[in-house]
Amino acid sequence: MYAIVMAGGSGTRFWPLSRHHRPKQMLALFGDQSMIAQTVGRLAPLVTPESAVVVTAAHLVEGVLHDVVGLPARNVLAEPAGRNTAPCIALATRIIAQRAAAAGQPDPVIGVFAADHHIADPQAFREAIAQAGRVAQSTDAIVTLGIEPTRAETGYGYIQMGADDGESRQVVQFVEKPDQARAQKYLDGGDHLWNAGLFFYRASVMQAELERQLPNVAATIASIVDGDAEGFDDRLQALFPSVQSVSIDYGVMEGAGNVRVVPARCGWNDVGHFGALQGLLETDDAGNVRVGDQIVQNTRDSVIINDVDGHLVAVVGARDLVVVHTDGATLVIPRTIVQDVRHVVAELREKGRQDVL
Amino acid sequence: MYAIVMAGGSGTRFWPLSRHHRPKQMLALFGDQSMIAQTVGRLAPLVTPESAVVVTAAHLVEGVLHDVVGLPARNVLAEPAGRNTAPCIALATRIIAQRAAAAGQPDPVIGVFAADHHIADPQAFREAIAQAGRVAQSTDAIVTLGIEPTRAETGYGYIQMGADDGESRQVVQFVEKPDQARAQKYLDGGDHLWNAGLFFYRASVMQAELERQLPNVAATIASIVDGDAEGFDDRLQALFPSVQSVSIDYGVMEGAGNVRVVPARCGWNDVGHFGALQGLLETDDAGNVRVGDQIVQNTRDSVIINDVDGHLVAVVGARDLVVVHTDGATLVIPRTIVQDVRHVVAELREKGRQDVL
Repeated sequence: MYAIVMAGGSGTRFWPLSRHHRPKQMLALFGDQSMIAQTVGRLAPLVTPESAVVVTAAHLVEGVLHDVVGLPARNVLAEPAGRNTAPCIALATRIIAQRAAAAGQPDPVIGVFAADHHIADPQAFREAIAQAGRVAQSTDAIVTLGIEPTRAETGYGYIQMGADDGESRQVVQFVEKPDQARAQKYLDGGDHLWNAGLFFYRASVMQAELERQLPNVAATIASIVDGDAEGFDDRLQALFPSVQSVSIDYGVMEGAGNVRVVPARCGWNDVGHFGALQGLLETDDAGNVRVGDQIVQNTRDSVIINDVDGHLVAVVGARDLVVVHTDGATLVIPRTIVQDVRHVVAELREKGRQDVL
Repeated sequence: MYAIVMAGGSGTRFWPLSRHHRPKQMLALFGDQSMIAQTVGRLAPLVTPESAVVVTAAHLVEGVLHDVVGLPARNVLAEPAGRNTAPCIALATRIIAQRAAAAGQPDPVIGVFAADHHIADPQAFREAIAQAGRVAQSTDAIVTLGIEPTRAETGYGYIQMGADDGESRQVVQFVEKPDQARAQKYLDGGDHLWNAGLFFYRASVMQAELERQLPNVAATIASIVDGDAEGFDDRLQALFPSVQSVSIDYGVMEGAGNVRVVPARCGWNDVGHFGALQGLLETDDAGNVRVGDQIVQNTRDSVIINDVDGHLVAVVGARDLVVVHTDGATLVIPRTIVQDVRHVVAELREKGRQDVL
């Protein structure tokens, strides 16, 4: 199996830990390795670094190659501009198909992964991936990995499952983020899965869907990839920034003719904001996540991250608070509105504060 | 008039802004000058720096001399150990009396001031001081300056006033910090003043009270001060640390035979904790005190102080919060319990964290 690892995000909801030159996927939030290194690492032995293509931004290429041991330089693609997920996947799919064909492997099976997710049970994750890969290999379907919900989450899209053929389930429909009542119904009903953005397909199947549903995207990507190797970078710079910006969900998956889903229970978490760390990192007796040098008194259910050696953070009498101290910037925000940190990033961009972005 | 300025406090309730080598009285919280510089400065022309004696700790002498323009080096006394206010006042009083006598001014009038108070109306303050000085000069009383209360404050001791002789009022009694109901009664009744720890006396009057009420303290201080000038420092180091630790209020004022009070309305504030800054510094439309580089969104009635150039503090969705960022340490604490910062300082001392104290 080949892998496309999408690592172009800016991770604004993890500011100030996440910065322009060190976005979320480059952070070592869980152990010693960055999330991108863990993302590629946990795919072995199903996918080796030689078979993984990481798509990222130009200023992150060096960091990706530093973090992901064994990743060949040619397996890192730098998008000249972010154009959402459909062009990203189209580009990487066509490049992988071309290289595989040259290596005598026509129509390879490809899995698409995000570089900034946490997987508590990598073994179960690999088993689900292997299953999804087998389904992709043996059918003309685009196969998604659907995560069995463990709570009435309103922050994710859902996948409604239909008939089971023993290998996978029919996809009845993709559902937008629900309200609380509907999320509870999905959880109780048992026929909805979280859409984790994990896709598996044979290259020819995805390319046919791209040509049918996003013909302009497909044509531009073909113009970039098909041609002499020396001219690739120039064509990428010239053509990619003007390609239609569209998500794979909206542009391809919702209208795809044949979509299957493999349910998975693997402790998946998209680590969407600082609050998610409370389920993923060790907490003290009062439910606090505590990282770095700090004094904490009379404080509960808070996330306190001090990323600066030689600096002390003292938090007293806090409830449900997020305090993040980094070199150059400190954030204080209630956990219940932690996603609003994006408004801080927006204000900093407006003000041209590149020094702290 | 001579002045004793007590500047030995450690200001733990202003940690981390206040540190071992830069306690509260050395901070420039209000304008460009430190509070000790403002304390001496606002006494002119009643008291010049040449007539002011600052009592502080050894490690602060250099900073005091730097801050207080015109203060002669011999007018800074370094206590080898803090022994509360009575020994401090006894020492400085005897030294001033000795020097004044040598200059042909027997029995000088002395005022005692704290180095870390804020006075909104210095002119009214000076007028009250002048009045208190006149009463001290013409009577055998120890004269206090009592602050007319502007709210039912439970954090201060009170002075109950009696008969008015046109120049000053009788002191019926000193009252400990009251509860809320009693503080309200004091405010409504109109015959209670805040005890601001401001005293005025002729040297002989204070020395007589010391000899009567604290004879051991008086004797030790006499042993230190009376003697050859070259041996003063040695005697101070040898004898002062073992003198009884006792406050001037408890040790002298409560038992003094003749105490008068001059009421004052001068915008006095003892700047006891970060919350006090909300009444003393400019606030934004949402009631926030904001100092230094920061992004503040959806935040009310908070105190946000960023003391580090090149660092950004972002606070989102806060109510009644105190956030103080300094070189080496950051504090987050609700405004309602801001005095609990002393528990942080206590924990740091226990842990031997001199690096951030």
